[in-house]
Amino acid sequence: MTYPEKLNAIRQQMKTDGVAAYIIPSADPHISEYLPDHYKCITFTTGFKGSVSTVVITQDFAGLWADFRYFEQAEEQLKDSGFELVKLKIQGNPEYIQWLGETLPKGAIIGFDEKLVSILLGELLHKELAYKQINFQHKDYLSPIWENRPALPTHPAFLVADECIGQSVSSKLEKVREALKKHHAEYHLISSLDDLAWLFNIRGADVSYNPVVLSFALISENQATLYIQHDKLNAADKASLAKSGVEILAYDSIANDLKFLPAESSILIDPKRNCFALYKLIPTSVKRILETNPSTQLKAVKNEIEVANTRRAMIKDGVAITQFLKWVKDTIGKTEITELSAAAQLKAFRANQNGFIGESFNTIAGYKSHGALPHYAASAESDVAIQSDGLFLVDSGGQYRYGTTDITRVLPMGNNTEEERIDYTLVLKAMIEGCKTRFPKGTCGYQIDAITRRPMWDYALNYGHGTGHGVGYFLNVHEGPQIFNATATPIPVELGMITSIEPGIYRSGKHGIRIENLVLTIADQTNEFNEFYAFETLTLAPIDTTLVKKELLEKAHIDWLNTYHANVYAKLSPFLNEEEKVFLGKMTSEL
Amino acid sequence: MTYPEKLNAIRQQMKTDGVAAYIIPSADPHISEYLPDHYKCITFTTGFKGSVSTVVITQDFAGLWADFRYFEQAEEQLKDSGFELVKLKIQGNPEYIQWLGETLPKGAIIGFDEKLVSILLGELLHKELAYKQINFQHKDYLSPIWENRPALPTHPAFLVADECIGQSVSSKLEKVREALKKHHAEYHLISSLDDLAWLFNIRGADVSYNPVVLSFALISENQATLYIQHDKLNAADKASLAKSGVEILAYDSIANDLKFLPAESSILIDPKRNCFALYKLIPTSVKRILETNPSTQLKAVKNEIEVANTRRAMIKDGVAITQFLKWVKDTIGKTEITELSAAAQLKAFRANQNGFIGESFNTIAGYKSHGALPHYAASAESDVAIQSDGLFLVDSGGQYRYGTTDITRVLPMGNNTEEERIDYTLVLKAMIEGCKTRFPKGTCGYQIDAITRRPMWDYALNYGHGTGHGVGYFLNVHEGPQIFNATATPIPVELGMITSIEPGIYRSGKHGIRIENLVLTIADQTNEFNEFYAFETLTLAPIDTTLVKKELLEKAHIDWLNTYHANVYAKLSPFLNEEEKVFLGKMTSEL
Repeated sequence: MTYPEKLNAIRQQMKTDGVAAYIIPSADPHISEYLPDHYKCITFTTGFKGSVSTVVITQDFAGLWADFRYFEQAEEQLKDSGFELVKLKIQGNPEYIQWLGETLPKGAIIGFDEKLVSILLGELLHKELAYKQINFQHKDYLSPIWENRPALPTHPAFLVADECIGQSVSSKLEKVREALKKHHAEYHLISSLDDLAWLFNIRGADVSYNPVVLSFALISENQATLYIQHDKLNAADKASLAKSGVEILAYDSIANDLKFLPAESSILIDPKRNCFALYKLIPTSVKRILETNPSTQLKAVKNEIEVANTRRAMIKDGVAITQFLKWVKDTIGKTEITELSAAAQLKAFRANQNGFIGESFNTIAGYKSHGALPHYAASAESDVAIQSDGLFLVDSGGQYRYGTTDITRVLPMGNNTEEERIDYTLVLKAMIEGCKTRFPKGTCGYQIDAITRRPMWDYALNYGHGTGHGVGYFLNVHEGPQIFNATATPIPVELGMITSIEPGIYRSGKHGIRIENLVLTIADQTNEFNEFYAFETLTLAPIDTTLVKKELLEKAHIDWLNTYHANVYAKLSPFLNEEEKVFLGKMTSEL
Repeated sequence: MTYPEKLNAIRQQMKTDGVAAYIIPSADPHISEYLPDHYKCITFTTGFKGSVSTVVITQDFAGLWADFRYFEQAEEQLKDSGFELVKLKIQGNPEYIQWLGETLPKGAIIGFDEKLVSILLGELLHKELAYKQINFQHKDYLSPIWENRPALPTHPAFLVADECIGQSVSSKLEKVREALKKHHAEYHLISSLDDLAWLFNIRGADVSYNPVVLSFALISENQATLYIQHDKLNAADKASLAKSGVEILAYDSIANDLKFLPAESSILIDPKRNCFALYKLIPTSVKRILETNPSTQLKAVKNEIEVANTRRAMIKDGVAITQFLKWVKDTIGKTEITELSAAAQLKAFRANQNGFIGESFNTIAGYKSHGALPHYAASAESDVAIQSDGLFLVDSGGQYRYGTTDITRVLPMGNNTEEERIDYTLVLKAMIEGCKTRFPKGTCGYQIDAITRRPMWDYALNYGHGTGHGVGYFLNVHEGPQIFNATATPIPVELGMITSIEPGIYRSGKHGIRIENLVLTIADQTNEFNEFYAFETLTLAPIDTTLVKKELLEKAHIDWLNTYHANVYAKLSPFLNEEEKVFLGKMTSEL
């Protein structure tokens, strides 16, 4: 079926049912960031391959709402599909809802697959369109037309030993149950895969880049049930879970168990991390307590073993990055390097490291103007050769059995302009500003974000993405609840959290610069004014200083950089050969 | 009646009604900051005179929940009252709700006067105590025991001419109606007195410091009704309002009009700025749209005439402050100055200025350790004489017919310690950091707050209050919606808003330092990255530099201060006599 044929087939079903508009979100029943192929509904319907967008279809219009990161890609991939790109004004804003309100007649019916819509979005649609008396119906219009739809993934899953992860499943269940008590909740449904992976010390490969397993869980004071395809875990792991008081049931049976929750009981359910379909199965007499999953907060605060292991992963990752930087320097002008070949070589260096199991996301290797596209991923068509001029941005990360990494460095390839030098220096200044900040207990991500951006604002510069995101432990490279961005998210930065700091400058058609380290929140000092926290920089890899304009930095920034580089050399050099040591020594020499 | 007798009388009524707990908030039906005497219920019941607290009474306990600003005062004033101080852990947090949940049995009845509780608080009480199946009942236990309760104020009110205020009532009504359309609301109830003063260009003297009038309004597409005591306005003003399409009805008749709103209609109502009693009168079939009053946002963005007039008020105020600073310097060591006499003298200097109608709040004049109490107000008992050492903090403001001011300066009285010098310099640095920041359109108060605090965090210093608040135009010195503090309030700082920037350092038992200017948001520059805004500093008064340790400042701070002082001298000197000019010249000389 061509895309226009698929569109036509959806419209036929809409006509039959009297559905005025059909919404296809990019999500799965776990509200995941990365989707199993089975749930790549928008790619199936429109051909668009970007990871975040929403499709809305009426009889007169078929649109794909996407943000600036995807404008070029969407224009290209939607050609002749019958779908038009609608450019979002604000990233993440469900602007199609207003459009629906303006477009549909009073009392119209909107359809969507309730498995693919979070509770939050479902409630928002109802609330925002109430003035038009819109009716909502669950409709799956894709299954009937999706030939050879990929099955749900069947990769095996495994338990990580308690010793490697620092906390037993029973101890984690106890913490979750304490939180349920605090919220006066008797039951708790979990759908989000990284929460489940954390809580049950379980890992898998059901989704690209995220080592998670398709599953659900229902927790109460006396029971903990994990819903998972029965052949995913081996007998030993099943026995181990049983010993921790975890019952295992079939993946699909969550639906039935929700339907038969006791009348008048109460359930804690995270509106951002559960789908509307499951939510609607809960009997009406059951009190819904809409709160963030307790595990999301617990997971974000790393224990001592997780921190110690992550420090080990950072050394492995730093060695691979150093080898990669040296390889680029040694190879350029001799053998052709392209964006794709560079990414492959970097992956190869990481793969040499013990414990590496894969990349933590699709490497962004963007040369010159490609670097200005914040979510650029080179493809066979877009791939270009790296030359001896301009800037080459590489944002990459690894999944190790003992930690997750995420790092961005910018390689000056030669003949750099004054603008490149100034931009590079100011991005570095902003990153250092974020890393070196001291802040009182209770400080939230939006405050760290403002402090990081300030040196750029001084020069009327800014970047369109957030300053940083939480990072999992051998888990998702993007995790909550903390986030360093400008939005009003009242989540304090706690001791033990690992977060990225990654400011940038993007000049369309010219270059992109982003420098990213991961930082751990640590205790600083306590006095009559407050308990103060600081960041320990975990990432260990040299930051090229050849473009740095010292006069744009204050002494504190230069001191920070010199101390950082001394530490990078001390930690990495024992794992490098002589040539690599000399190279790293030069890269980390005092400024 | 003594306070214990009052407490006993309340408990008797509770027993009769089977009410397990009785809540007395500090509020009126307009959810005002400053209360008319008629609504000073907590002072009547307990003797406590602080402006923010909550009283909760059970048969076994009677407590007053107040934050750190009031600890000393409350301990003193509650002595022998039968009420105990309960210290709030977090300012503004309704911690008594959790206490009620832990204390009361399932199904207990809580009583409160629904006129004194905002919709937000009313809903919160219901939500947070739902797990205990608490019932809520409207109970007014004070009226029966309040002999000679002060009547509602009967001060006359007046209309400000459109020319002096820059926008006509009909044009303002039009803007509000546009917002109602956007929210799909047919009706709109306004209870907040500053919103009403702004919308109807009306001013009065019903409340201390805030030039507002007790009133309500109900707005629809075709009607605008102002509910106000009929003798408050003169015939000319009434005629003028009628010409703008405003109907005038009795203050009390709002209740009846709400009860008879058409079935199935919709009403926009601000949950923070309306009381629960009125909310409950709205027929259940009427759809409630809970949103901030559109006038709150409109009011905060000052028009050109308001800005031009405020600049005039700042000159008047700056002249008064200069005269005051000179007076202190000339008088100290010759005639006794106390905190109270200084405040009176400052008021006298302001009163000499054309258009002055009163103070915008109770002057905080705190010498030495009194300065460390952020909301200290000298009384006959606490008043102390100013000596020739230490620091003297003066936070004051004026209401002029063409603007509202708010300014804090710290006067070094002599023999200052190194700690005082460092603290003073860092507070100044933080204030300059806030005032000189450039920021992209869309930036919210919490971002400005973080940028202002950063120079203090570098030294592990902090302050427990917000960095700044919105300031009205010949209206309340505290107004929303913007606020510069650490809480996640997603209100962007818009062009035309006037806000204070007032960081501080408080060392208990030693000194308090706070330096405060008002700033106007202005356009800065627009480029490929964003539209950038900046602040124009409106306040015109010298900042003492004798304690400044230049080595703690960067060049940018010193430049800012010199430019600021040059402007202060240029703007104020034409209105000073020769001696005052010489004095100001010295105060504003280059650093």
